[in-house]
Amino acid sequence: MATVTVRNGVDVSALLETIEAIKAKPELASFTFRARTIWQDGTSAAAEIGSFLHAGMQDETREQPFTLVGDEPPVLLGHNKGPNAVELLLAALGFCYSVGYVANAAARGIEIEEMSYEIEGDIDLRNFLGISDDVRPGFGEIRAKATVRAPGANEQELKELCTYVQDTSPVKDVLANAVPVKTTIEVIEAS
Amino acid sequence: MATVTVRNGVDVSALLETIEAIKAKPELASFTFRARTIWQDGTSAAAEIGSFLHAGMQDETREQPFTLVGDEPPVLLGHNKGPNAVELLLAALGFCYSVGYVANAAARGIEIEEMSYEIEGDIDLRNFLGISDDVRPGFGEIRAKATVRAPGANEQELKELCTYVQDTSPVKDVLANAVPVKTTIEVIEAS
Repeated sequence: MATVTVRNGVDVSALLETIEAIKAKPELASFTFRARTIWQDGTSAAAEIGSFLHAGMQDETREQPFTLVGDEPPVLLGHNKGPNAVELLLAALGFCYSVGYVANAAARGIEIEEMSYEIEGDIDLRNFLGISDDVRPGFGEIRAKATVRAPGANEQELKELCTYVQDTSPVKDVLANAVPVKTTIEVIEAS
Repeated sequence: MATVTVRNGVDVSALLETIEAIKAKPELASFTFRARTIWQDGTSAAAEIGSFLHAGMQDETREQPFTLVGDEPPVLLGHNKGPNAVELLLAALGFCYSVGYVANAAARGIEIEEMSYEIEGDIDLRNFLGISDDVRPGFGEIRAKATVRAPGANEQELKELCTYVQDTSPVKDVLANAVPVKTTIEVIEAS
């Protein structure tokens, strides 16, 4: 009897091997991810996302860094050269949930045919614009709605998996709970 | 005497008009931003970021949605088709800080020649991988380092502005402080 090792495009054997390797050597679960943004003009900047540290070693599998452009829409004084920061954050939540759902489904033997997330967040920009600090700078609430088609699974297990994915999602965690953010500045030229 | 209305590529007159308009009508500061992610295969998904709500009305300035692809590196069972979710989150922080710094500098009369942010975050993926819930799922710490060149400004004001931008940054806020994230699922086909 043939063993299915790839489900939902995820190599389940490799996933289980990774998990066993980390159980034996927990430092293999440690990563330091990075991004660099370079201001372009006005509200637009470019981002580069390249190598990262895995268990203290550089991962060199990306020959070129990924690049993306951020900007604001005209109503926020930009030129729509790219999505803005808070929109990217919502996309990051969708990506995180998606990977978690599909990979865990694969491990549990659930075949997914279709999966999407609609994410939205409400924000009052008075704080950001220096008008009022009675409102918080960021989103007051974020809502995510998953849609899944998996004819071979039962509804109960698909819902239970959604809850599990929320509880283990790195992006959900850092939104729903506080993270220390340490910001420093180097002035390379001033008067 | 000519009045400078554009500084650092930011239309300062338009910025001040926007602020006055919001002071008169605070609902103009309300936005609902959105992103949609569509699972592709394995750990990869596409994101679409298009229209948003501004004061309850659809902003229609984007003719096409922005699209981006997320994926994992091979060590996390992906194929490096794009950055992963937590890397995008770091880029979002850099974009947010960048807009805040450059726009506020413009309003304060500070000309910026160069501005970048290096962002990094440490994460232990044992929780995400279902190995241990003794560690949190997300970043344990995020570090951001700004580099700025502004020959006409003094170092003290550049540093003070960095602090101000942290305190008013939407993305910094939702990382450093908790946000309610409400997640639901619609099962469109199950057994």
